[in-house]
Amino acid sequence: MTAPQHPQYSLKWTHYSTRGGELEWKESASDFKGQASPPPFLCRWVKFEEKVEEGGERWSKPHVSTLTLHSLFELRTCLQTGSILLDLEGYSLPQIVEDGLIPPDLKEKISFVLLRKHRHQTKKPIHRSLADLGKSSNTLKNKFMKKIPRDAEASNVLIGEVDFLDKPFVSFVRLAQATTLGGLTEVPVPTRFLFILLGPHGKTKSYNEIGRAIATLMVDDLFSDVAYKARDREDLIAGVDEFLDEVIVLPPGEWDPKIRIEPPKKVPSAEMRHLGQMNGSAGGAAGGEDEELPAPHELGEELKFTGRFCGGLWLDIKRKIPWFCSDIYDGFHIQSISAVLFIYLGCITNAITFGGLLGDATDNYQGVMESFLGTALAGTVFCMFGGQPLIILSSTGPILIFEKLLYQFSKDNEIDYMELRLWIGLHSCLQCFVLVVSDASYIIKYMTRFTEEGFSSLISFIFVSDAIKKMVGHYYPINRGFKPDYITAYKCECIAPDQGETSNSLSLYMFCFVMTECDHVHNSHLHLSKKDCVKYGGSLLGNSCKYVPDLALMSFILFFGTYSMTVSLKKFKFSRYFPTKLRTLISDFAIVISILVFCGLDFLLELDIPKLHVPTEIKPTRPDRGWLVMPFGKNSWWWYLASSVPALLVTILIFMDQQISAVIVNRKENKLKKGCGYHLDLFWVGVLMAACSFMGLPWYVAATVISIAHIDSLKMESECSAPGEQPQFLGVREQRLTGILVFVLTGLSIFLAPVLQYIPMPVLYGVFLYMGVASLSGIQFWERIKLYLMPPKHQPDFSFLRHVPLRRVHLFTLVQIICLAVLWILKSTFLAIIFPVMILGLMVVRKLLDLMFSQHDLAWLDDILPDKDKKKKEDEKKKKREKKVAEPESDEEVREN
Amino acid sequence: MTAPQHPQYSLKWTHYSTRGGELEWKESASDFKGQASPPPFLCRWVKFEEKVEEGGERWSKPHVSTLTLHSLFELRTCLQTGSILLDLEGYSLPQIVEDGLIPPDLKEKISFVLLRKHRHQTKKPIHRSLADLGKSSNTLKNKFMKKIPRDAEASNVLIGEVDFLDKPFVSFVRLAQATTLGGLTEVPVPTRFLFILLGPHGKTKSYNEIGRAIATLMVDDLFSDVAYKARDREDLIAGVDEFLDEVIVLPPGEWDPKIRIEPPKKVPSAEMRHLGQMNGSAGGAAGGEDEELPAPHELGEELKFTGRFCGGLWLDIKRKIPWFCSDIYDGFHIQSISAVLFIYLGCITNAITFGGLLGDATDNYQGVMESFLGTALAGTVFCMFGGQPLIILSSTGPILIFEKLLYQFSKDNEIDYMELRLWIGLHSCLQCFVLVVSDASYIIKYMTRFTEEGFSSLISFIFVSDAIKKMVGHYYPINRGFKPDYITAYKCECIAPDQGETSNSLSLYMFCFVMTECDHVHNSHLHLSKKDCVKYGGSLLGNSCKYVPDLALMSFILFFGTYSMTVSLKKFKFSRYFPTKLRTLISDFAIVISILVFCGLDFLLELDIPKLHVPTEIKPTRPDRGWLVMPFGKNSWWWYLASSVPALLVTILIFMDQQISAVIVNRKENKLKKGCGYHLDLFWVGVLMAACSFMGLPWYVAATVISIAHIDSLKMESECSAPGEQPQFLGVREQRLTGILVFVLTGLSIFLAPVLQYIPMPVLYGVFLYMGVASLSGIQFWERIKLYLMPPKHQPDFSFLRHVPLRRVHLFTLVQIICLAVLWILKSTFLAIIFPVMILGLMVVRKLLDLMFSQHDLAWLDDILPDKDKKKKEDEKKKKREKKVAEPESDEEVREN
Repeated sequence: MTAPQHPQYSLKWTHYSTRGGELEWKESASDFKGQASPPPFLCRWVKFEEKVEEGGERWSKPHVSTLTLHSLFELRTCLQTGSILLDLEGYSLPQIVEDGLIPPDLKEKISFVLLRKHRHQTKKPIHRSLADLGKSSNTLKNKFMKKIPRDAEASNVLIGEVDFLDKPFVSFVRLAQATTLGGLTEVPVPTRFLFILLGPHGKTKSYNEIGRAIATLMVDDLFSDVAYKARDREDLIAGVDEFLDEVIVLPPGEWDPKIRIEPPKKVPSAEMRHLGQMNGSAGGAAGGEDEELPAPHELGEELKFTGRFCGGLWLDIKRKIPWFCSDIYDGFHIQSISAVLFIYLGCITNAITFGGLLGDATDNYQGVMESFLGTALAGTVFCMFGGQPLIILSSTGPILIFEKLLYQFSKDNEIDYMELRLWIGLHSCLQCFVLVVSDASYIIKYMTRFTEEGFSSLISFIFVSDAIKKMVGHYYPINRGFKPDYITAYKCECIAPDQGETSNSLSLYMFCFVMTECDHVHNSHLHLSKKDCVKYGGSLLGNSCKYVPDLALMSFILFFGTYSMTVSLKKFKFSRYFPTKLRTLISDFAIVISILVFCGLDFLLELDIPKLHVPTEIKPTRPDRGWLVMPFGKNSWWWYLASSVPALLVTILIFMDQQISAVIVNRKENKLKKGCGYHLDLFWVGVLMAACSFMGLPWYVAATVISIAHIDSLKMESECSAPGEQPQFLGVREQRLTGILVFVLTGLSIFLAPVLQYIPMPVLYGVFLYMGVASLSGIQFWERIKLYLMPPKHQPDFSFLRHVPLRRVHLFTLVQIICLAVLWILKSTFLAIIFPVMILGLMVVRKLLDLMFSQHDLAWLDDILPDKDKKKKEDEKKKKREKKVAEPESDEEVREN
Repeated sequence: MTAPQHPQYSLKWTHYSTRGGELEWKESASDFKGQASPPPFLCRWVKFEEKVEEGGERWSKPHVSTLTLHSLFELRTCLQTGSILLDLEGYSLPQIVEDGLIPPDLKEKISFVLLRKHRHQTKKPIHRSLADLGKSSNTLKNKFMKKIPRDAEASNVLIGEVDFLDKPFVSFVRLAQATTLGGLTEVPVPTRFLFILLGPHGKTKSYNEIGRAIATLMVDDLFSDVAYKARDREDLIAGVDEFLDEVIVLPPGEWDPKIRIEPPKKVPSAEMRHLGQMNGSAGGAAGGEDEELPAPHELGEELKFTGRFCGGLWLDIKRKIPWFCSDIYDGFHIQSISAVLFIYLGCITNAITFGGLLGDATDNYQGVMESFLGTALAGTVFCMFGGQPLIILSSTGPILIFEKLLYQFSKDNEIDYMELRLWIGLHSCLQCFVLVVSDASYIIKYMTRFTEEGFSSLISFIFVSDAIKKMVGHYYPINRGFKPDYITAYKCECIAPDQGETSNSLSLYMFCFVMTECDHVHNSHLHLSKKDCVKYGGSLLGNSCKYVPDLALMSFILFFGTYSMTVSLKKFKFSRYFPTKLRTLISDFAIVISILVFCGLDFLLELDIPKLHVPTEIKPTRPDRGWLVMPFGKNSWWWYLASSVPALLVTILIFMDQQISAVIVNRKENKLKKGCGYHLDLFWVGVLMAACSFMGLPWYVAATVISIAHIDSLKMESECSAPGEQPQFLGVREQRLTGILVFVLTGLSIFLAPVLQYIPMPVLYGVFLYMGVASLSGIQFWERIKLYLMPPKHQPDFSFLRHVPLRRVHLFTLVQIICLAVLWILKSTFLAIIFPVMILGLMVVRKLLDLMFSQHDLAWLDDILPDKDKKKKEDEKKKKREKKVAEPESDEEVREN
């Protein structure tokens, strides 16, 4: 009769009776003043060991149970000689005691001891161990209850010293039904197993160790399975032997047994161990014989070439429809608020920056207003219906350059810009549709880590350098060499236009008109504001005219302060202070908190730091254009066809930018579960191209860095795990709500202007800087660059370093750096417009790397290209068959060693 | 015939022969392109395991050898069945092979294999493993050579697969003489032991693990001892069993065997293990049964009450004289340069600050000049002849307040201040001598951690708050609400005194005289500098007069920047970047680097940040005083006697301040080796009191924070240790050179003025802030305060937390906080003058704590008071005899659980 296995929760009690005299129990209390208290006796295991510290008032940190080999052998002996009672019927400890647990001659005494013990157990130690901490807190117990798997059963280990025994009495009991045995466990978990060890005085330490050993065994997945299924003593002993065979041994001279080992990030799963993969290769830890290659690059069926018309698009829609409801309600979480605020601020900063630049480039045909409306429109539609609603659409650099060139061209050739642009947009939209229906996105699968990391690093660098450039752009020069003593000499005066030279005396008249005290003017300076002065033709004279005190330094403080406070608060999650929940909250809201703090600082100092100014009225930036662009009438007919050529460039731009960003978002590290939608995304980008072109709004495409930031701000970690188990990264809160809210808010920004005007621009550039830097983290390329600066012995234990010679790793990194440097230089020239196309260049370089590096090295450093993958497997098979051996080189010079 | 034990260095080689065909060796090379390379085979141990990574080009990070229990048992079997050859004579591998290593039937084949192997070994793997890395670098080998203990001998482990064997061939060889066996070892270490395991194909992994097991055993101190002394097979097997008995076991379900365990900070010493203390209690790691109390508070014989006249002083001198030479030459180290610069800057900043304050307090009877001279004189003498030359003398707050009150009193009562002060100094000096000859310093031993930490925390807080206060003192207001557009409206003009109102027309005359263009003045403002304007009676008018642009923010940036850069550079020591030496250098020079960087920044911006200005001419600050104070003539005779009363206060001040600082410097964590000199120190402080009083210089006493900084900047760590072993803190570079240099430099500062004037004060306040904060680190009190903010499960594994209930820890900390708060408040009142006396109050509070806390808890949180110590031991004995048991409480409410 075997029961199904349940997760285990072990608890070990130790009690000492007094020597001689009345039979009383002495608990683990440390309230003998002035005396080293006896060792603590209560330990528990959910997965890792926790013990009650000496004071008896707190559980220790969970740690790996380090056992002595000795105790394991003694336990084995105990099981060989002790009484084993399997599937005992019993509903309370007294009943169990009665029901045949005890050999007849000692029955009375042991029974008496166990029952007394039981009574004492319910009182003192629990009181000592938990009630003091949690007197007012059943909460605390509930909290611990949450850490125990739902259907867990308890193993109780009772260790004690008694007077009347000459040799130890051991009993291992499995109950037929899991039963709640009074106060044996501090939480209401039913007990299934009992291990009792009573023995004569003097061997407490050894007994305790045996108790710890059995308790540790009981929470071991494999042994607990054995314990549930065991039919007799031999099964149990075989279980112990199996356990022994797997244990890892630390040499006594290399380890201090007093150290409590922190639980590892990951432990081998029971399945793995069942498969015997670990068997006898534990030392592989150091012997390191994991021959398996890293998991191959997988893009899944989403990028398969279906060969059918709209095949990919249809699959995308079929894949996304079932998630649509959860895409909304999954968004209801406090984390979403932080994500929305963060991304919203990123989006409007971007909208304002690009709006300003577009306005400059197109004589305000597209300005800040258009930028806001377009962002809101495109973003909302995309997040509502797109395949991957975590992607954030935004204006990007290449499109900006394209618009600039196009406007210049139109102006030079007297073509109507808006109409030409509309036609390009329409053609581009059509071309996108062609790419969609033909499943063209499948070529993305040739993009490996090399290309993807190259692209995203470059975008991140651009982001960081832009943030710094913009900061410096707002730079007010510092009045260097200012001498406070000569403060009387610093001034800036408005000088009226010289009457003698000015042919037109209107200026002076204006001056006098504006200034009521014009006639009192002694010398030629006037009390006009700087702006007015310039407006009325005056000139500014003085040594302080071009300086604004404190602005430069304050901007720097705001910029750098926002960045570093965000970084620190993000890191705060890993500090030891405050409960985990609070820390997670602070870390989630790091950016919002930093922005608020530095806006507050700015508000207090009342300095005239440039602020975020959003348009407050809905009307086109340029008064001579409306909200709708007419397709016909202004340009000659052949432009309607010719525009398909520049449209092709736009299409390539959009296709590359969009799909690479999507690949980065879909990185397997992000553990996305709701599937990709490359074709569907491209479809909507096409539709939005057309719509925006009709309304004269900018074009939008996926923005890599903001999308990564969006994902980062929505990461989930497991909460309920056994004490000491590391929280696992579960994936990303995949939903449409945050995206939609961000863009709706962007649209409403026009009404939020009164609030937004308190945000200084340097603070927002600080946020940008953070976004850029954060999107670099976790990129292997970046980790490999850092390796250059580390002496080999300090390098972290990356798996690729275990398998690829450092020289090759460095070479690979160097190639990547050179590629990026070349791209960076190209980007700074007029070639910037074809920047996304250059990514194709990266893919070519990657192809060439096959000639420089072995497939083995590439598998660790990058991914195997799809066709190589097959070839490689064949290669390996061949190699295995042949077992060919490289010629031993003879190298005399080394022999002298 | 047993040889003395040598430190061991193990090296394991594994080789595979080809299957069938010619007998060739295949080495661990990974140059088969496109194929997962075979597992690596070369491992070495100095103390921890290092292995050649798969690429064969680098050694892994040293890690604890995790073995499988299985392999240890197999090794045991190998030793039981294999051939054991002890004290074999042999000088080369071939000879050893010949000399009876091989059973006759296989002799030829195995001999051939081993010899071939040998040949191959010398070539390929070494080439692969080291030459590639270190082709150009014998340096590298020498570097590794340094890591091996001087007289180490090698154990070579040779593992291989061959065709012609059906069952494994095992041989364990101990050579009679350690012999250099060709290229077996990569560094010239003679080989003493050989372990050879050859076997049939297919069990490589298992063989490898056995090889790792024996190699690990050979570097184990106890087993290596056994191996050196073993007379036969049984001795070796007993050694293995002993080892097995001590090993620590990790349950397979709680540990991932792929993790390489970082070497622990400390491992149990061989002696400890010899004593068997570890035996069978390894699990104590988690069971945590270390019943011993923390090492008792020891102040050593230095503070014993000798009962003889000058007994303590005489002992101090006897103790210090032998070190005098080494006190000089121990100072020759690059670290000293950094320490000197750091402490020098601290000292002159202090001298200037206190000089300024003293000047204000005494109408310049003692000013900056006197402060510099006095610091230089007192410091040099003390560091040259004092008992503890690491202590830095400085002016302190209480003395300052005393001088202030004294000057006020003299002025009010028309007594000559300098003469009165001289007599107080003389009396105080005499009183110090009385304390010296009577061994009064012995009472310091009643000062426990509680008092000492309270004092030093308070001093640190004062230091930090002073640094911030001084920063804010130099505060230039920020022109809040400055509108750049109205820059024309900001000015500050010098208005000539109103002719109508000024009765004296001299002012206007002066104005006109100074200003050559006086007659051109249209309206009433003039081009005078601020200072001149005020000087000639003009007034400043305008809205920018009280503002200096950028100064406030720049000061903040310099202050905070210096502080945080110092902190970061100090931490840089623990980063992974750059070689250890460079990092140590950067960390040692952190403060100097930060100061230079921010001085450079300040220099670049040319802002008028207040700079460090030292006097440039040697003359008393007040022209009406000379360099010598005459003892008689100005005050009435009875003052000569009456001055002994205030002198008593000064004596107590000095005694407490000096001796507590000395106790803090002598903390056992600092591992000082050259002994204390409490009495000698006090003697010199007394002498200097008198000397300074005669010259009218300020009085000096030990400065806690600067002394701690001095010690921190001179800490030594062990360099040459086995790979993976943590560098140990060895102690402090105890010498007189740095101190002497600091004070000689202070004296020379007058000539360094042109250089020092480039140092902005905010940078120096940043250094002060760092000093204050740094002296808080490592104080247990501070760690305990942090515990308030940590949930129990995140608290670090402090030993006192293992033994004292958290509630009691918090209570103890709370008492300390309250004491400090009270002291802080008292310090802010006029009672500040008796501040050091209040420390006596702390000692009383500590005495009272004996009533609140058990001696057990106090032993962990504090120290046991000297008399309690005895009493406690008696108590314990009594307790042990009686074994009385606390009455079991009955507490019904808990039973429901």
